[in-house]
Amino acid sequence: MTEDMRPYYHKVQYYETDMMQIVHHSNYIRWFEEARLDYLEQAHFPYAEIEARGFLIPVLGVECQYRKAVHFGETVLIETEITKFNGLKFTVSYQIYDKEHQVLHTQGSTKHCFLDQEFRPVFIKRKAPDLYEYFTHKILHNR
Amino acid sequence: MTEDMRPYYHKVQYYETDMMQIVHHSNYIRWFEEARLDYLEQAHFPYAEIEARGFLIPVLGVECQYRKAVHFGETVLIETEITKFNGLKFTVSYQIYDKEHQVLHTQGSTKHCFLDQEFRPVFIKRKAPDLYEYFTHKILHNR
Amino acid sequence: MTEDMRPYYHKVQYYETDMMQIVHHSNYIRWFEEARLDYLEQAHFPYAEIEARGFLIPVLGVECQYRKAVHFGETVLIETEITKFNGLKFTVSYQIYDKEHQVLHTQGSTKHCFLDQEFRPVFIKRKAPDLYEYFTHKILHNR
Amino acid sequence: MTEDMRPYYHKVQYYETDMMQIVHHSNYIRWFEEARLDYLEQAHFPYAEIEARGFLIPVLGVECQYRKAVHFGETVLIETEITKFNGLKFTVSYQIYDKEHQVLHTQGSTKHCFLDQEFRPVFIKRKAPDLYEYFTHKILHNR
Repeated sequence: MTEDMRPYYHKVQYYETDMMQIVHHSNYIRWFEEARLDYLEQAHFPYAEIEARGFLIPVLGVECQYRKAVHFGETVLIETEITKFNGLKFTVSYQIYDKEHQVLHTQGSTKHCFLDQEFRPVFIKRKAPDLYEYFTHKILHNR
Repeated sequence: MTEDMRPYYHKVQYYETDMMQIVHHSNYIRWFEEARLDYLEQAHFPYAEIEARGFLIPVLGVECQYRKAVHFGETVLIETEITKFNGLKFTVSYQIYDKEHQVLHTQGSTKHCFLDQEFRPVFIKRKAPDLYEYFTHKILHNR
Repeated sequence: MTEDMRPYYHKVQYYETDMMQIVHHSNYIRWFEEARLDYLEQAHFPYAEIEARGFLIPVLGVECQYRKAVHFGETVLIETEITKFNGLKFTVSYQIYDKEHQVLHTQGSTKHCFLDQEFRPVFIKRKAPDLYEYFTHKILHNR
Repeated sequence: MTEDMRPYYHKVQYYETDMMQIVHHSNYIRWFEEARLDYLEQAHFPYAEIEARGFLIPVLGVECQYRKAVHFGETVLIETEITKFNGLKFTVSYQIYDKEHQVLHTQGSTKHCFLDQEFRPVFIKRKAPDLYEYFTHKILHNR
């Protein structure tokens, strides 16, 4: 987590639980998305604007390790950072903690690429230099 | 249920349960959609084709009464029928039974209208006479 | 909305949209739940505690009218109030507005009852007098 | 896929799509669960019975690669196999194809362990020898 980004908080909803009395594992993948879009918004690139500029950012892959179950009534804190970027593809990593940042519940990552509206890959260096600068800066910063 | 339509079966999934050990109530609204789209497909109007022809069918309203909870491991049978139609708006009614059609678990209805791709209301009598005929026939049949 | 309750805000998530480019209608039923549980928490009856005290509050019915679609990138404001209560059953009503409280997007209600852990109906006047007092007070206040 | 197991078919539902006009990536994680539970049922170990016998099978990890998006109106075929097992933990692998088994849309795996109802790890060799035999046989068969 770079020092200038706020972590994202998610309050567990009842509809996110399953009959094992814990949060269903598919919801963490959704929380990754929530945290990723909050991160982009904090970086002044709200995803609705990215799509309005003609770019799509699909998910190419996801991996997630569940360490300690999360329950209804809890709030989690999600730390997000961009860990790889090559101008076309990037990786985002996530760590899900309890609200007090004491216990690591879950960690994972998602892989993405930039597409145009015809679903063709787009190198963003020329097409979206501001986004390119930001991602490049983040990667250097996170090393 | 008119005699010529097969009921729709849905097998309860683990991810549809909640910590009360029953199916979360929001899923029945999704099952209504599953059953409605299956019904249209049986009627030879698959929804993907309806959208491809330029019509959208949003949901204007929904109501649902939960009589007896459904559990993981069960399969439900859903009966669907079109109960109102005026050329623009229509109502679909649903009854959710156990697999053996002995116990009524849930009943409800959804209200819809036809829109064009600019989200403007469309009377389908001229624009989609085959759909109009079908809906009109069903209403007469169900009286 | 009684003057002493904060409205509940929900930020629309990407995973809540569907291919009609709007929020899928089943999610409003989940937002009702979010708002209802927030309301109980504001009233100092967090739902996790209610269940820990041995009460379940299933949903007996739901109805919802969709007036104006909600889109990704928007935040909605949900007003919640208890509109009926007889010691066993109660009704909660919801109005979903845009963030600035200018446009009514959706309205609806849910019906509930109190059950014990064997799923038997419970009149809460003796078993949970604090909850009984609160609900009764709210109903009088909302008249 | 061992020769004696039927693949699992899932018909894409409208509520599984998102505003990118494709199936939201979190749903594939749910489809893995559907296919896994169908697999166990085919093996005569329906999951509801496994839980009734006192075992829980939580998900410890998941990974998924999205190769080609799936759309509304399509039906997918999911092949499932147990690829690792050590008496306590096991891995299940999935391949999601189009209905005609021509195009690989998605592949992934999930990691699991056996727990008792107090959420303690359970070696199943003695506690559930039939399940142990089955899993062991499958692993040998899949080599």
